[in-house]
Amino acid sequence: MGRIVVDVMLKPEILDPQGQAVRGALPRLGLDQFTDVRQGKRFVLSVDGPVTQTHLASAREAAETLLSNPVIEDVVNVHELTADEPEQAPITGAGA
Amino acid sequence: MGRIVVDVMLKPEILDPQGQAVRGALPRLGLDQFTDVRQGKRFVLSVDGPVTQTHLASAREAAETLLSNPVIEDVVNVHELTADEPEQAPITGAGA
Repeated sequence: MGRIVVDVMLKPEILDPQGQAVRGALPRLGLDQFTDVRQGKRFVLSVDGPVTQTHLASAREAAETLLSNPVIEDVVNVHELTADEPEQAPITGAGA
Repeated sequence: MGRIVVDVMLKPEILDPQGQAVRGALPRLGLDQFTDVRQGKRFVLSVDGPVTQTHLASAREAAETLLSNPVIEDVVNVHELTADEPEQAPITGAGA
């Protein structure tokens, strides 16, 4: 089964209150190195069999028409999920 | 300025109504190749200067304590945003 990742972020000029809330909370955890935080969306689309160029073209079309609002958001990334992004081997959550 | 990406997805066993809604809408756009859709969150953390191992360690700590809920979510990815992910050159939105 192939997987395609679509990343959508608010345009840089659009205010991001969720990101600002995270930015404001980080210093309270002792994490004060971060100068800005932006929050966006990540979609993982599954297809039967390996990912083809047709699948990627469809994913781009979906990204531009359904997964993002082009007035306020940019599709920053549409790519196949490869083994170096271990979606099935999370960094956290091993005990769950 | 360096940037670190943190990707957070719902655990595979957790129901994802947002992803299911997208999954249900895709065929109405003529996009019927996709067998499943999962929706997660993508955070972009900015730091002054280049990204160091200390920054990445802090980002991992933030990911595990603030950016995700370990009961229902997995941190699937914490990595430096590199030039091959053109955050500043979106795929869509060129006319905005």
